[in-house]
Amino acid sequence: MKASTTWEGNMAFTMTNENGNTMRMDAPVANGGEGSGPSPMEVVLGGLAGCMGIDMVMVLKPYLDKIERMTFDTVGERNDEPPRYFKAIELVVHVDGDVPASRVWRAVKLSDEKYCSVANSLNAELSYKVILNGEEAAEA
Amino acid sequence: MKASTTWEGNMAFTMTNENGNTMRMDAPVANGGEGSGPSPMEVVLGGLAGCMGIDMVMVLKPYLDKIERMTFDTVGERNDEPPRYFKAIELVVHVDGDVPASRVWRAVKLSDEKYCSVANSLNAELSYKVILNGEEAAEA
Repeated sequence: MKASTTWEGNMAFTMTNENGNTMRMDAPVANGGEGSGPSPMEVVLGGLAGCMGIDMVMVLKPYLDKIERMTFDTVGERNDEPPRYFKAIELVVHVDGDVPASRVWRAVKLSDEKYCSVANSLNAELSYKVILNGEEAAEA
Repeated sequence: MKASTTWEGNMAFTMTNENGNTMRMDAPVANGGEGSGPSPMEVVLGGLAGCMGIDMVMVLKPYLDKIERMTFDTVGERNDEPPRYFKAIELVVHVDGDVPASRVWRAVKLSDEKYCSVANSLNAELSYKVILNGEEAAEA
């Protein structure tokens, strides 16, 4: 898998993948950038969420037409000193729809343990919460 | 650090950071998506390149007005079986401009070892090449 990322001046960069899709990144204004895109570390949080999201779409296929919303809130805890890597990341998985909590948890676990390429590329400790129709669902 | 990522139907997801910047991801058509954005794993490659890029902008500050181009080609080698995590990533750093090779290598090494939050969040083995004005520059 290949990608190419080019400097756009100051702290902005644009990645282009092999199909021509692009993604712009920038440092926030507080860190000397212009905030014209998410930061590289935010992009990693998004990649983790998107990866688990795609796994959940596949595992929950029989329920998809009953699912109105899936949102993944990611909270990354970073090392205090440089390098400020992710020590831990919590994923809060919000699902609204008519799907059993046990199925949602099964999808989260399958992604974490077996399928999610991004989760398994990171050395952060990952933890999960499931919020089903607005209420926290205990792990089965 | 927080981000929120929402399902947009099929295999597309949009991440929003705390400043309101967004990033769209999708699976490629070959994998059942619509290719409306880079994939989550491509996004990680871009995040790695952008992170090192920002470090290089900072370390090479005295030379910045003489640098015409910086491009980071990232090649990720993935595990054959699921989870298809990155086993190794090669970064090929292209710099065009009037800057000593030793300074470019120093920036790359400082980023790798000390500053790059993304590089230090990944468990892949990272390797680097520097191409300065079209020619490979040996590590000092």
